[in-house]
Amino acid sequence: MPKERIEEEGISPKEKVGRLIENLGPISNTIQYSWFIEMAQKLLDFNGDTIDSSNWESFYDDAEQKMSADNWTETVFSKSRLESVFLTNDFDDPLEGFDSTKYIPCLRTDDLVFHLSDARTKMRLYEATNIEVSDVKSAREAIGKLFDHFTRRNAKACAISLPPTFAPTKVSDARADTALANIFAHGPSADEDDQRAVSNFIFWTLAENCQSYKLPFDLMIGVNRKVFPAGVYQGQDLYDSRVSLIQYKDLLNAFPDVTFPISVLASVTNQELVSYSWIFPNVIGYYSDMYKMEFALPKFAMYKRILAKVLAENFVIDRNWSEESAIELGTQLLRGNVETIFSVGK
Amino acid sequence: MPKERIEEEGISPKEKVGRLIENLGPISNTIQYSWFIEMAQKLLDFNGDTIDSSNWESFYDDAEQKMSADNWTETVFSKSRLESVFLTNDFDDPLEGFDSTKYIPCLRTDDLVFHLSDARTKMRLYEATNIEVSDVKSAREAIGKLFDHFTRRNAKACAISLPPTFAPTKVSDARADTALANIFAHGPSADEDDQRAVSNFIFWTLAENCQSYKLPFDLMIGVNRKVFPAGVYQGQDLYDSRVSLIQYKDLLNAFPDVTFPISVLASVTNQELVSYSWIFPNVIGYYSDMYKMEFALPKFAMYKRILAKVLAENFVIDRNWSEESAIELGTQLLRGNVETIFSVGK
Amino acid sequence: MPKERIEEEGISPKEKVGRLIENLGPISNTIQYSWFIEMAQKLLDFNGDTIDSSNWESFYDDAEQKMSADNWTETVFSKSRLESVFLTNDFDDPLEGFDSTKYIPCLRTDDLVFHLSDARTKMRLYEATNIEVSDVKSAREAIGKLFDHFTRRNAKACAISLPPTFAPTKVSDARADTALANIFAHGPSADEDDQRAVSNFIFWTLAENCQSYKLPFDLMIGVNRKVFPAGVYQGQDLYDSRVSLIQYKDLLNAFPDVTFPISVLASVTNQELVSYSWIFPNVIGYYSDMYKMEFALPKFAMYKRILAKVLAENFVIDRNWSEESAIELGTQLLRGNVETIFSVGK
Repeated sequence: MPKERIEEEGISPKEKVGRLIENLGPISNTIQYSWFIEMAQKLLDFNGDTIDSSNWESFYDDAEQKMSADNWTETVFSKSRLESVFLTNDFDDPLEGFDSTKYIPCLRTDDLVFHLSDARTKMRLYEATNIEVSDVKSAREAIGKLFDHFTRRNAKACAISLPPTFAPTKVSDARADTALANIFAHGPSADEDDQRAVSNFIFWTLAENCQSYKLPFDLMIGVNRKVFPAGVYQGQDLYDSRVSLIQYKDLLNAFPDVTFPISVLASVTNQELVSYSWIFPNVIGYYSDMYKMEFALPKFAMYKRILAKVLAENFVIDRNWSEESAIELGTQLLRGNVETIFSVGK
Repeated sequence: MPKERIEEEGISPKEKVGRLIENLGPISNTIQYSWFIEMAQKLLDFNGDTIDSSNWESFYDDAEQKMSADNWTETVFSKSRLESVFLTNDFDDPLEGFDSTKYIPCLRTDDLVFHLSDARTKMRLYEATNIEVSDVKSAREAIGKLFDHFTRRNAKACAISLPPTFAPTKVSDARADTALANIFAHGPSADEDDQRAVSNFIFWTLAENCQSYKLPFDLMIGVNRKVFPAGVYQGQDLYDSRVSLIQYKDLLNAFPDVTFPISVLASVTNQELVSYSWIFPNVIGYYSDMYKMEFALPKFAMYKRILAKVLAENFVIDRNWSEESAIELGTQLLRGNVETIFSVGK
Repeated sequence: MPKERIEEEGISPKEKVGRLIENLGPISNTIQYSWFIEMAQKLLDFNGDTIDSSNWESFYDDAEQKMSADNWTETVFSKSRLESVFLTNDFDDPLEGFDSTKYIPCLRTDDLVFHLSDARTKMRLYEATNIEVSDVKSAREAIGKLFDHFTRRNAKACAISLPPTFAPTKVSDARADTALANIFAHGPSADEDDQRAVSNFIFWTLAENCQSYKLPFDLMIGVNRKVFPAGVYQGQDLYDSRVSLIQYKDLLNAFPDVTFPISVLASVTNQELVSYSWIFPNVIGYYSDMYKMEFALPKFAMYKRILAKVLAENFVIDRNWSEESAIELGTQLLRGNVETIFSVGK
């Protein structure tokens, strides 16, 4: 189904859902469809294994009613046994109007690192910090202000997604000054070398602030944005499995006190992630993310089923662990590590 | 065993088989050996689990007799439950003398894309189309003629195998004209840039014709040819697992109406293939191929056993699917998709 | 725990072990910890499943006593059912004072290939061969002398570990002469092109000697050295999974008579290793290594458990092999291949 049908302006939510359901056949064998059914069953009391053209409408009406209730969020939190969720907030988010111990802010920094040459980003940064960024000094001040604002509002991490070609390196202040001047003068059409120098400078400055403010720096490594521009919102990105954590060698050595929770997109990078977290004490392998609060229940249920299978087969059966020890390890992975790494929940 | 012993000129088929059998020990643990035994059992009524120096000769004589029968092909089709097979035909194949609904032609285009600088290829193209290719215009005409000829003879796909470094891109007509002139002037020793421009131009033109003629374009991505030149025929090629489908981003976006059944050589590219076919509606993951008609039975039997295991474990057990639904999905993969994608068999 | 605590000068072995044990919690779920426990149980009669702060001291005292016994090595050999072990010896090792049929020498060549520009390496080569290396001729002589010395002392292989970017190629004598002159003139700061030419020349010369002396050439492909310089000894290296055996195409074709036992670091390269050893008769997939003699027992026990599972599931169950045939294949992998490839043990 073409994007135009799904994202057509002016259609009602019900019309949109109807169109989607009619075309869901080809993906009914996917894990995502199974999440959808599990959400329907567990959160919305749906009885059955399939939602299709024969029954979606009554399910829709029932769901709409339940999800309109004032306490819907509480219901989701309670049924999913969630205590709090980690957000990723734009750097200019005022972080107001919500309980930041329940919705924990994180500073999302993609725009700062990769789109500072865009006049809109520079303006947003000015509006958020009251600092006109033009050189190394003002950039450092502005970024410091963001960390100050975020940590005051209980932020627990700085986060970024990175293209597979990115290999962070420290650039000198002199080089960064030149590069900043050039990208502000020429915008997105500035020389690629200058754009890369700015990305490196800003990224390194973020890591320095993570060190000062004792924040973990979440890295999602390997994303290619807008590979399929004709795709729907959040359905355009892909990846390149030719990436190595060796690209992060300098960074990991330069900031031994910063914890880097790292997630990788391609499963073929998993062994590297395990090896790097075995050698580098500041590297943590990490599983992300959800677009909607309602995803938590099925996505973690899936994760827990896989974890249970691994613990049963590779620890209890293969290595003679007691079931108690295996469950303890699972609990540490699911809960203990989060508490320690992000200083939350206890 | 050296190639010279296997491909020695003048030896009889029986002598060749004898030499092979005497040296089959080291590969008796491979899946290919198990195919050989399964072919012997199912197609040639062999009783036993091993063919070696003690029993090969009587098996050979028996096989020779059975395979000499006029209706041997019918026997293989019937025992293997084959209705038709997809060929890959040289672009100058007259496609005559066979039933093209049973042996379905496909236009194999490696030579056109990668060896047009070879005088022999140019000559073959002239003989096949009566067009002397010298520039963009004549190249387009000649390729159009090939598609016309192939589709009239029931061709159901255009196909090509691609080296891991290939990253198709559209080149301008002017650039292509220069490049064509240079490769025809200098042959295989022409400048690499010109050779690459020609490859890109021809490849893109093939895709354009796939669009016009509504043919899928089969891509086998990642082959390195003649890595071991001392190997026997079809035993010289290998691959480089450092390849990414991101190399095909421009192509996949430029031809949304062309279906691209893609197969990859390295299992580490499988996750990318799944992800790209999840995002791009025109990408299909696809499993190829067989050198001899007799391979179909054991190779598909292996595929079906693996598929059955996946359906049982990951769908029926893990996701509570009914056995009927799992079998339906398997049938769609094995048969339904082929019918839809290649417009055959129904 | 920082390196300084573990490698602090002057602390007693018992103090070091105490510090390690107190910090072993975070790795108690690793396979390495399970090896440690298995060694304790099988080699040192430890009763129990955990060694921690509550019981390490008495275990340490008991182990120290057992390991001080004159016949400790015999005990390890006998309990581990080892007949002999393959060493990797520095090129200037005199290879004296041990039974070289029990401790089989191998010529380790990393320093020669990658650090010949280091004055210390050149001096060691002079001391080992009495040849002052300055050009192609003297380098060939010196390397020939090393092979002569090693093979006289029962060496069974030449061995090297290689960074992921290495792609061996033959260089002309003239080029090698220039490059050798330059690296001896400028040392480790010599031009990178010259360093690479020397590495290629030495590496190729080693392969030539392997051919003359009929020695296998063990290649461990993909190691990045000192990625985490703050790590403990043997805890600093990592790898880059972006490597392909296609880089070794020229080498494998140039030396059809040399056996290349190849091990790769990243599991994602395993399929390539299998494919290359399927096509190239001189490529052998190979599993390495142990830092201490005591590692043999648990590491091979792990290997044998995995092998047993594969044989049971993929051969006996999936392919209807008899258990006897499966055990025969396992025995060939574990023992027969070693005997054939390295001409030992029979």
